[in-house]
Parts: sequence; structure tokens; C-alpha cells
Amino acid sequence: MAKNNKIQPELASGFRDYLPQEMLARQKMLNIIEQTYQKFGFLPLDTPCLEKEEILTGGDENFKMQLYRAGLRNSNDKLALRFDLTVPLARVIASSQGEISLPFKRYQIGKVWRGERPQAGRFREFVQFDADIVGTKSLMADAEIIALMYETLTNLGFSNFLIQINNRKILNGLAEYVGYPEEKNAEVIRTLDKLDKIGWADVKKLLSGEAQSEDENKKLTLNEKQVQAIKNIVDINDKDSFKVLEKVKSLMKNSAIAQEGIQELEILIGHLEALGVPKDKWVVDLSIARGLGYYTGPVFETILTDMPQLGNVFSGGRYDGLVNRFMAKSIPATGTSIGVDRLFVAVKEMNLIKTQKIVSKVLLLNIEAAAESKIQELVTKIRQAGIEAEIYFGNEKTLKGQLAYAVKNEFPVVIIIGADELKDETIQIKNIQTREQINIKEDDLISKIKEIVGV
Amino acid sequence: MAKNNKIQPELASGFRDYLPQEMLARQKMLNIIEQTYQKFGFLPLDTPCLEKEEILTGGDENFKMQLYRAGLRNSNDKLALRFDLTVPLARVIASSQGEISLPFKRYQIGKVWRGERPQAGRFREFVQFDADIVGTKSLMADAEIIALMYETLTNLGFSNFLIQINNRKILNGLAEYVGYPEEKNAEVIRTLDKLDKIGWADVKKLLSGEAQSEDENKKLTLNEKQVQAIKNIVDINDKDSFKVLEKVKSLMKNSAIAQEGIQELEILIGHLEALGVPKDKWVVDLSIARGLGYYTGPVFETILTDMPQLGNVFSGGRYDGLVNRFMAKSIPATGTSIGVDRLFVAVKEMNLIKTQKIVSKVLLLNIEAAAESKIQELVTKIRQAGIEAEIYFGNEKTLKGQLAYAVKNEFPVVIIIGADELKDETIQIKNIQTREQINIKEDDLISKIKEIVGV
Repeated sequence: MAKNNKIQPELASGFRDYLPQEMLARQKMLNIIEQTYQKFGFLPLDTPCLEKEEILTGGDENFKMQLYRAGLRNSNDKLALRFDLTVPLARVIASSQGEISLPFKRYQIGKVWRGERPQAGRFREFVQFDADIVGTKSLMADAEIIALMYETLTNLGFSNFLIQINNRKILNGLAEYVGYPEEKNAEVIRTLDKLDKIGWADVKKLLSGEAQSEDENKKLTLNEKQVQAIKNIVDINDKDSFKVLEKVKSLMKNSAIAQEGIQELEILIGHLEALGVPKDKWVVDLSIARGLGYYTGPVFETILTDMPQLGNVFSGGRYDGLVNRFMAKSIPATGTSIGVDRLFVAVKEMNLIKTQKIVSKVLLLNIEAAAESKIQELVTKIRQAGIEAEIYFGNEKTLKGQLAYAVKNEFPVVIIIGADELKDETIQIKNIQTREQINIKEDDLISKIKEIVGV
Repeated sequence: MAKNNKIQPELASGFRDYLPQEMLARQKMLNIIEQTYQKFGFLPLDTPCLEKEEILTGGDENFKMQLYRAGLRNSNDKLALRFDLTVPLARVIASSQGEISLPFKRYQIGKVWRGERPQAGRFREFVQFDADIVGTKSLMADAEIIALMYETLTNLGFSNFLIQINNRKILNGLAEYVGYPEEKNAEVIRTLDKLDKIGWADVKKLLSGEAQSEDENKKLTLNEKQVQAIKNIVDINDKDSFKVLEKVKSLMKNSAIAQEGIQELEILIGHLEALGVPKDKWVVDLSIARGLGYYTGPVFETILTDMPQLGNVFSGGRYDGLVNRFMAKSIPATGTSIGVDRLFVAVKEMNLIKTQKIVSKVLLLNIEAAAESKIQELVTKIRQAGIEAEIYFGNEKTLKGQLAYAVKNEFPVVIIIGADELKDETIQIKNIQTREQINIKEDDLISKIKEIVGV
């Protein structure tokens, strides 16, 4: 409560509204994404925003400070808000055996919550739009996911973007290659994932233990030679992905798992070519790690090369072990996720979608009490002809005031019924753009409106 | 955790998934609703699922047992999950003065949460689809809302439904009419709202104090004469709404507020007629109360007359005081809300929307390793022609096994490239419905697919 016993109408920190003009553009964007996903045969799924906490974390405490827990006052249920759409998918797969036939290609759009420190452009509630293929180990599926990412961004109107591809198996091979215990792999990979955000100097400090770790139990203490060996791998860089793979193949000769990862990427690249994904739209980049622990094979991230400061907008990878959290049987899976809010920033910035203030084509002014029933009849008639229309309900009583509202809100057509029109049994119709204004008979109303708005 | 260290893949009690076949039908339903709302000029808005608790409750403790509270481990923010979309709208209106021009017609679709006792067909997370007009006292706006409800249900294919209309002002007049203190009105109205669920006998016990109240502080203790006076009002029943209004007008002569409510309904009925809402689709029903406290004028509920057991599926009313929670200025508003999940039950039951298993038109079989690149090329080509298509990624290796999958999942077209086709440079195309199966040249592929699927 605050002054005058009024509650301050404030949003919680890290949360935001989307007002209509943004929503209309956003919906167009979401429709393009959905149509593209459907073109690839993906099917929609919906799951609750709230799940049991252990379902979401898998007992892993890493994420606990970012997890929103939720519950009723008198309930012992330990529930939390989902932080992604992938873990709930794995839960569905494990619990819907029989109802869902594998392989299962699903898409899902939904809000997720992460309690990251609020900062400009970062929110604690955001929308993800995922596509996943569950039930196949084939690298053709990973290639489909990358083709889908390419197609989606292209359909949205982006032409300058780069899908960066790596394989967790290569990163897992660092233990053998560099010479540190395998159980440190997860923390090394989580550290490398920060490379594009904090840069090599700080990543180096974390790898060597010079910098304070978020969790002192997991602190890394690699020596200088080991850190340099890691740098040699993530620094391999060439526009020609085959050359990248050649170099890492010869460097990491001693790691069987890395060699397996390299071979998978070679096969994956072949599939990308067959699927017609242009060569300038993807690259093998050995520094791509992905933060979440569940990835097991190829991983992907996407940057918009005109707006690299936005960071990764579209990412994913293969996670063959996640369903294992819930059942003995192993079910392989691969997929991708769009950070909708971040990508929408780019869509707006680059004017890829035309914005509009309203959806109505026609505003019926409300200036003459005796004409009230007439304009109600007419608005119904116009809507029945399939045209968006509304009656003016505001406080302006004058013709001038209501016309100004129509102009400000960009209605293309205005209908006016005053005392004269009631007497004449005519309708005054105004084309706001051309300022043409004529009186017509009711029978000609629909055709005249269609003429003006061009439908 | 449970057996074998596996986490049981269970949903929390009162929550549910929507699998693809249901989702595809549901999306069609949502699209029809959205198009109808837009036809009336409503614009989309989105607000966060989490809000500050006091924003949602307004300090009112009535709802607290049903409210899901949520938060981060180390945060003092008192947040909760919204229980409707109306209160967040009021918060937006109060905080976006200047950004939003009034009157504001917005629609919003979103999940809401209420911790009601889980029971068959009742969920704790459900979807509402709201439309509201903010910033006008005109009863033309309330009439628009009712016309929107009529049009939406009609567009969804329902023909047997009844929109029941009352006015909170008539119910508020019960204090004067029956003779009890005005501050008891809220509890009397909340009790009357239970009428369709628990029946008059139990409502009577609550009004008289015979039955245990949920909150002993608010217990009602009306005497027999008072209870009977209330019954006399809610029992007024006539298909002709003007007759209902005539009767209540003469009975409640002593209540100025009731007379005001009756007069409003008379005006509202006139507007409904001008808007062309058929007379058999609405009725004045004095027993309609609406549970939530914020209503101040006309209120509406809708039953499907073929499925009365579903209860109210589409309801709302005028709430001129809600924005007052957040600011000194009063901003009148009226609106309506669909219980999407409940209405979807009816849509399915009455087969109003054709269900489909998949969206893909074409399945490309994957039976010959040497043809892998070829089918990848073809799937891209088919998608580029605007046709949904996918490659078989399952475990079946044989032609027979993959064909069975295609039939089971209702793909209309199957493409087969085996060793023979590779040699001939042809494509085998199969029409699953007619069982026609021919070999064609690649140049004829798209036109042949279009011929089969009829696009």
C-alpha cells in the first residue's frame, strides 16, 4: 500500500508488459515461426508452467538460485516455474509412452522464468519457441534442426546471421587432451560457455582458479600449460569448417570421444549441404559450449552478424540422456529454441515487420444520440461482411474531436451519421487518407468500404 | 526420487498436458476467437504471469487460499501467479497513462492459476481469453461485449447457448429491499453465486447461518422472512426479459440503486436489439451474481443449453471501480472472459472442429542409405513449394514398416526412393488414400503432390 491507500501499479523487477502495437508485430513474427515449424512437420504441444521442482532440476542444485518456486499457502507440494521447455518435454515423453509415437517432432511456445540479475534488455520472464525431434540418433535429425533454424530466420527476413556449430563430445575430449579428471568437464564447459560474454582473460582466470568461482566446491585449478591447451582448441578458426575439423582432428588425436565428435560433425555438414543450407550461414566454431548440462552431441548457437551485441538468439543441440532422468530406457533427442523476446528486439530494430496501431478498418462516429441504433445496426452489418469495425466510445462529443481521434489512431474509414443523414437516409463516409467525403445509400456501404480499404 | 534413482515423471495435481492432436484443434478454436475479437476492433495485450501479490489481491484476503505465491530463494519480493487477466489489465491502465489512449479495447489470452480443489475436468492452471473496453460508462460498450460473446460462440459453431444477464446494482439493492446492513452485500452476493452449483437448499442454509461459513467472521444470519425475500427476487423467471424487469421493478420499489440497475438493463436490451443479437440467445436472469468482488454494473454468464452440466463458459461484467485500486482517478470498464479449457471440452464433445493427427502432407521414406542426400534435397524442394513435408526418422528399416507408420499417422502422400529409383532417376509417389503408386520424374514432383493433396 502507499499514499492515499492506493496500491502502486508497479511491475515486479525484471518483468514487462507488451502493449498492442508491439503485440501485433510480435504475433506476426510468431506466426511466421509457427508456419515454418509446421512446414517441417513439427506438431504443437503444451505443458503446464508449474511442475514439481525435482522434475525441473533433476536433483541438480546448480540452478537453484534462479528457480522460481511456487505454491499454495497450505500445500506441501514443492512446485516451481519451468526455466525451459526441454525438461518438460522429456517429462512428457517419459510419461506418455503409448500415447506418443516416436520419433516425435514437437514445437512449443511458452513463457519460462529465470531469476537472473535484471538488466537492460534482460527479463526474468521470457518466451521460448522450441522445436525438437525425439526418438532418433540419426544426425539427419540434427541437420533438420539446423535447416529449420536457417529457414525460420530467412522467413523472418534476416539475411545476415551465422549458425555456429560444435559437438559436446569434442569438449568432453578436453579432459583426455589437456589432462584433467573427467569429472571436471562439466565445470570447464560451463566456464567456456561464458567466453562470448566475459572474454578469454576472465575465462582464463576461472579455469586457473585465479578468479573467485560461483561455487567454491567446483573451483578449477588448471595449470598454465593446461589452460593454453584449451585455448589452442577454442582458438581454431577458419571460415572453411572442414579445415577447422582437420586441425582439431590432428590436435586431439589422443581422445577417442573427441574423434567421434569430429566425425559426427563431418557427417552433419554433409547433411546440411544436401538440405541446401547455404555455406555462408553456418560454421563449425569450437568455442561454442552451451551452458545447460544436458547436451551430449552437436550443439548450435546463432548470432545476428549485424547485431552481435544481442548475443545468441537461437540455440540448441542433442541431449540423448535427458529422458533418462525419468525412465530406465534411453531416448535420444535433438532440438532448438528461439529466445523470442531477444529476437523480437532485432526484428523491430531492423524493421522486418510492418507495425500497425490498430486492426479496425472502420470507425463509426457517435455524435448524434438519435442515430445510436442506426450506427449499431451498421457496425454489425460491416462486421458481418468480414470487415473489422468499431463505434467511437470516447468522451469527445464533437465531430471535430472524434475525427481527430480517428486520424490519430489511423482508422482508414470513418462513418458519420448526423441529423442530416438521418433525415436523408444516407451515410456519410470519409476516406481518411484522401480526405474524400461523400454521402451514400446504405446499400452501397459495404462496397464503398471495400473500395477504400482495398479488400 | 524413486526406484532406480529415477524421478517419477508426474504432473502436479490439478495440472495437465495438451498433446498435439488436441493442440491442433485447440489452436483452430483460439484462432476463431481471436479473429472474432479483432473483428470488433479489440487489440492484443500481454502481461506477466507473475505480479506483486498486493496488486492481485488489492489487500483483500478472501482469495488468499487459492493464490499461488512464487519467488526466488533469496528474494523478499512478494509475488504471486495471476488468477485472472482483469486485475493485471487494471494495473496496466493505471501505469500506462499517456501510452494508452482511452477508450481502450484490448484482448488477452493467457494462463491463470487458482488453487481450487482438483476434481474431474477442473484444473488449477487454465487459459482465459478476455476482451475488455476500458474508459467508457456507455451501456453501448456492455452491449458490444454481449454482441461479441454471441458472435464468438456462433463463429465457433455453437447454436444452443444462452447469455444470462443481470445487474449488480439490483443485487446491491437487496440490502434495502430485504433489510440487512449494506456491508453484508458482498457476502450475500458471493453466496448467491453458488446457486447453480449447490442449489437453493444449501444457499438458504448459508444465508441463514445454519451451514458453516468458509469464514466465520463473514457468517450471515438472515431470518426466514429475509431469506424468503431474496428468494422472491432470484425466482423471478420469464423468457420475456421485459416482464422480468417489470416484476422486479415493482417488487424493489424501495431501492433506488435497484431501480437504477433495472433502468440500465432496459437500455442495454435496446442496444442488443440494435446490434442484432437474437432474442433467443440472451435473457435477464436475476440469480446471476458472479463471484468476484469487483463488478459494479451489468454482469453476464453463458451456459451451453445442450451441456448445462459444464456450467458457465463465458462471463463478465462492468467493473467501474477496479482501476481505483491503483489511482485516485476512476476509470470505468466492462468486459468478458472465456474459460478456454471448459469451452474446448464442449467444442470436442460436439465435434465443432475437425481433428487432425499431423500437419505434414508428405512423408519421404528412408529405406536406402545411398538415397539419403537425394531425399534431403527433395524434402527441401517440397517445403520450398509451401508444402509441409518430413523425412522418416524412426527405427523401422523396411519399406513395409515405414509404410505402416505413414498409414497409421495419416500422411496423404509417401515418397519412396530405392535402388531402382536411384538408377532410373525417378521418384516413386504413393497416394495413401487411393493406393495409387507411380514413378515420376523429379520435374513433375511438386505438381503431382499438389494434385493429390488438392492445393
